[in-house]
Amino acid sequence: MYQRFSLADIMDMERSYRRDFINTLSGYKPANLIGTLSTTGRLNAAIFNSVLHIGAKPPLLGLLMRPLTVPRQTYDYIKAQNCFTINSVSQEIYRQAHQTGAKYDEETSELEATGLTPLFTDALAAPYVAESAVKIGLELEEEHHIRANGCLLIVGKVIEVLVAESLLSDAGHVRLEAADTVAVSGLDRYFLPRLLSQEDYPRP
Amino acid sequence: MYQRFSLADIMDMERSYRRDFINTLSGYKPANLIGTLSTTGRLNAAIFNSVLHIGAKPPLLGLLMRPLTVPRQTYDYIKAQNCFTINSVSQEIYRQAHQTGAKYDEETSELEATGLTPLFTDALAAPYVAESAVKIGLELEEEHHIRANGCLLIVGKVIEVLVAESLLSDAGHVRLEAADTVAVSGLDRYFLPRLLSQEDYPRP
Repeated sequence: MYQRFSLADIMDMERSYRRDFINTLSGYKPANLIGTLSTTGRLNAAIFNSVLHIGAKPPLLGLLMRPLTVPRQTYDYIKAQNCFTINSVSQEIYRQAHQTGAKYDEETSELEATGLTPLFTDALAAPYVAESAVKIGLELEEEHHIRANGCLLIVGKVIEVLVAESLLSDAGHVRLEAADTVAVSGLDRYFLPRLLSQEDYPRP
Repeated sequence: MYQRFSLADIMDMERSYRRDFINTLSGYKPANLIGTLSTTGRLNAAIFNSVLHIGAKPPLLGLLMRPLTVPRQTYDYIKAQNCFTINSVSQEIYRQAHQTGAKYDEETSELEATGLTPLFTDALAAPYVAESAVKIGLELEEEHHIRANGCLLIVGKVIEVLVAESLLSDAGHVRLEAADTVAVSGLDRYFLPRLLSQEDYPRP
């Protein structure tokens, strides 16, 4: 049995019901920690489920951010330093990663508060998360304003990747499952994916 | 042991190695079939791993498309009808869904060629995939041109949802696991996620 919802039905939903319904509707999402640094040296790490692959040459990844109607440290710090990091989340740290979503006061570093470890390289002024098996350093490339709701699509160019060697396949795939990388549905449901198969390139 | 890649290292990679490396780098993705209809009545269905949640009120989802340097039926049909569908992919149909990525000739419907079943409602001029437990109908809302590589972000407004009743939680979550919904890493590695936990709203 199928249930049908019209746009009017969705707009009439109670706020948190609609949030969870729409957030879980379109499938699994990546769970990532976004690392940023303020000009005053404050380390920020925040969980995002909205990282998007945009292209391989040049290597580009996107990040959808909520409207700037309230202060957004991650956005402010990306703009201030022109860079940010994307860090994978494993089964071992997903509860700490989720906890970075709490509204800490401005003096508190989410990394410290959640027991995660910052790691810097010479390539960029943003912290990686030491516990993450995949660490991606990016320069801000462009941003797009979604007119329909005020969200921002941040596009970053990958300038550095640190990846645990055991994850790399001979063909270039990062084997996420070898690091117990988690996926997320909506804002709060965490999953451990199990490989079904690697398919061949499809031909008619 | 970590391996480090600079931007220069990535640009120097062999083409397919870089494609798979960058496509798998940032984590799991949703697997969805995009349904569209041409003005001549041709039914199109194509697998995409780039659907993105954009907002709940109004309900908005995004779809990243490759540059229009070669003909893109999905894009052309979305523009022609101003609408499209997003359909979930389960373990039962993921091989058929993957096969829709093959370059069929212009006369062939991917739905017919892969044995999937079109389903129409009165709400929009695009086919749903009958086998999908979650079917989302959208109107084209806006599009954004990614300057760095020519990709397009298509933003659609959800105007209809058909969801198997057994998937809906009391709180509004769509329980993807109840339909054996798959996730994908890169372009070819399919996964079946297992629920680890549903976390509470994080507080300091």
